[in-house]
Amino acid sequence: MDVAEVSFDKVLGAAKTIFGVAHRTPLMTCSALDRIAGRRLFFKCENFQKVGAFKFRGAFNAVSLLSDKAAAAGVVTHSSGNHAQALALAAKMRGVPACIVMPSTAPAVKKVAVEGYGAEVIVCEPTLAARESTASEVQARTGATFIHPYDNDDVIAGQGTAMLELFEQAAELGTKLDAVITPVGGGGLLSGTCIAARGLDSAIRVFAGEPTGADDAARSFQAGELILQTDPKTIADGLLTSLGQRNWSIIQHNVEQIVTVRDDEIVSAMRLLWERAKLLVEPSSAVALAAVLCDTFDSECSGDAVGVILSGGNVDLDRLPWMSNF
Amino acid sequence: MDVAEVSFDKVLGAAKTIFGVAHRTPLMTCSALDRIAGRRLFFKCENFQKVGAFKFRGAFNAVSLLSDKAAAAGVVTHSSGNHAQALALAAKMRGVPACIVMPSTAPAVKKVAVEGYGAEVIVCEPTLAARESTASEVQARTGATFIHPYDNDDVIAGQGTAMLELFEQAAELGTKLDAVITPVGGGGLLSGTCIAARGLDSAIRVFAGEPTGADDAARSFQAGELILQTDPKTIADGLLTSLGQRNWSIIQHNVEQIVTVRDDEIVSAMRLLWERAKLLVEPSSAVALAAVLCDTFDSECSGDAVGVILSGGNVDLDRLPWMSNF
Repeated sequence: MDVAEVSFDKVLGAAKTIFGVAHRTPLMTCSALDRIAGRRLFFKCENFQKVGAFKFRGAFNAVSLLSDKAAAAGVVTHSSGNHAQALALAAKMRGVPACIVMPSTAPAVKKVAVEGYGAEVIVCEPTLAARESTASEVQARTGATFIHPYDNDDVIAGQGTAMLELFEQAAELGTKLDAVITPVGGGGLLSGTCIAARGLDSAIRVFAGEPTGADDAARSFQAGELILQTDPKTIADGLLTSLGQRNWSIIQHNVEQIVTVRDDEIVSAMRLLWERAKLLVEPSSAVALAAVLCDTFDSECSGDAVGVILSGGNVDLDRLPWMSNF
Repeated sequence: MDVAEVSFDKVLGAAKTIFGVAHRTPLMTCSALDRIAGRRLFFKCENFQKVGAFKFRGAFNAVSLLSDKAAAAGVVTHSSGNHAQALALAAKMRGVPACIVMPSTAPAVKKVAVEGYGAEVIVCEPTLAARESTASEVQARTGATFIHPYDNDDVIAGQGTAMLELFEQAAELGTKLDAVITPVGGGGLLSGTCIAARGLDSAIRVFAGEPTGADDAARSFQAGELILQTDPKTIADGLLTSLGQRNWSIIQHNVEQIVTVRDDEIVSAMRLLWERAKLLVEPSSAVALAAVLCDTFDSECSGDAVGVILSGGNVDLDRLPWMSNF
C-alpha cells in the first residue's frame, strides 16, 4: 500500500508555490448560522477559488513541482469534476499540455469548460478500468505525468494550504480554532487539512463530513482498514469516489471522527448556506455544515470555534435540489 | 424641495459609527467577468452585509445618531424591502422599539423576518398614501422618529461608507479606481457613493445602472429636474421607487451617466455573477453589472478599474428568474 510522505514543511512549501496565484479565499462568518449551530463557525470559502473549488491548490502545486523536462511532456488525469478544470488551468499557466480523460457520461458543459482552459479531452467508457487504461495509453504515448486527483503527495500538500489560511485568518479575527471540518470523498482535502492542522497546533481536532450514500471513509475508519466504495449514491457528486491509499494513511491517524449525513440533511445545509450566508456552494461543500449541525458532531466536538472548509461552488443553476425538475 | 446636507465628514463619521458593527464586506474580483467586461471589476459584496444588504449601514447610522430621548420613543418607517429589516435590526441593537409599516401585498416571509428582529409590523393598504398616513399616525401616537429609507441625510451618509471601504480595499490590492457604479432606485446608495467618491478622489467617475422599467433617475438626469416614477415594472424589485429629493440634489451634480438596462440584461448579469463569480446577489444588484456590460457604458467610461457595488442578496430561492415557475 502507498503511504503518504507529506510533511508540514511540504504544505508550507506549497503555500509559497501558490502564493499570488491561487486566491487567498475569504473567511466568512454568519451570525444566523452560529445561532443554529450553537457554536462560532468560520467558513473558508473555496467556492471563490480559481475554477470554483479548492482543487486548484493541489493541481497547481503538483504541476509546479515537475521538472522542466517532465512538465514539457505534459500532464494527464482522469476526472470529470473540479480536478479536471484545475489541472487544465494549472497546465495552461505553466504553458504545458494537459490531457483529461473523461467518461462518456460526463455533462457536455464540463467537457467544454476543460477545453476552454486549452486542455485536450479524451472521452472513454464510463468505467474506472477504461479511465485508467486510457490515461495509461496517453502516458505511454506522450510521456505525460499522471496527476492523480487526490492520491498524490504534492496534491495533498497543495490542498493543505486552505487550512493554513483558515488558521491565519481566524487568528486575524482574534480566534483560536478548536476544530476544523471538511467534506471527504477521495480524501485529498481532508488529508492535507490533517497535516496542516497538526503542524499548526496539535490541539485542533480534525473532523470530516461524509454522505451516508458514499460512506467508505466512515466504514474504513470504523474497521481500521481501507474499504473501497462500491455503488455510491448521493447528491454530493464530488464525493462519490473511494478514499485514496495515501489519503487513508494520513486520515487514519489524524481524524477525530467521520460524521455521516443523509442527502436531505445535505440539501438543508446547502439551502441554509445560500439563504442565510449568501454562500453559493455545491452539495459536496454543504456536507461539512450538515455534519456540524447533526447530533453526532454535537456530542463528539466540545470546542466552540470550528473552521468549516467549503470545498467548491460548481453547481448547475438549472437543476437545484429544491427545484421541481431535480 | 429638500436639499441634502451630507458632507464627506458626515460619511467619515458614519464609518466610525458603524465600525465593528456592520461587516466590512469583502471586495471580490473574477477574472472570467473581467474578460467579459474588458476591464478590471472590483465587486463590493454588500450581499454579505448584515440583513443581506447595504441598507444596514444607513439604518444603523441614523438610529445611532438619535438622541437618547428621541431613540427611547422608537423609530418608524414604511418599507417592505431590505430597509425594513435593516431598521428593525438597528433598533434592536440600540434596544429601542421599531415599527415597520408594510403594504398588505408584502410577502408573509418579509413580515416574519422583520418580526424576527423584534419590530412591530403594521399592515396597511398597498398605496403610498396609506403607507405615509399610517406611519404618521404611529409618529403622532408614539413620538417615534421617522427614518426614511433613502431621503434622509444620516441614511445617505451611512450608505456612503461602502464606497469608503471599496476605495480602501482596492488600494490594498494596489489599484486606483477609475470609476464606480451602483444600482439606483431611491438613490440612497448612489448619493452616498457620490459624496464618498468626491471626498476620496475627485477623479473617480460615478455611474449608475437603472432598469428601463423604472427609469425615473435616467429621465430626471436627462431633463435636469426630478421626475417621479409611475407604474414601475422590472424584475429588480429593490429599484421600483422614485428618487428622493435629497438624493436627487446630490446625484444631479455628481453622476456621470445613468445607464438603463432591460430585464433580460439584468437576469443575464445576475446569472453571470452566480455562475462565474459564485456571488449570490438579488436582481437589483445585478443591474450594476448589466450596466457595465452594455454598449452605453462602454462608450461613456474610458477607465479600466471599475468598482461595482453589489447591493444585496435577498432573493427567493424557490423563484429564480431562470426557473420555469418564475
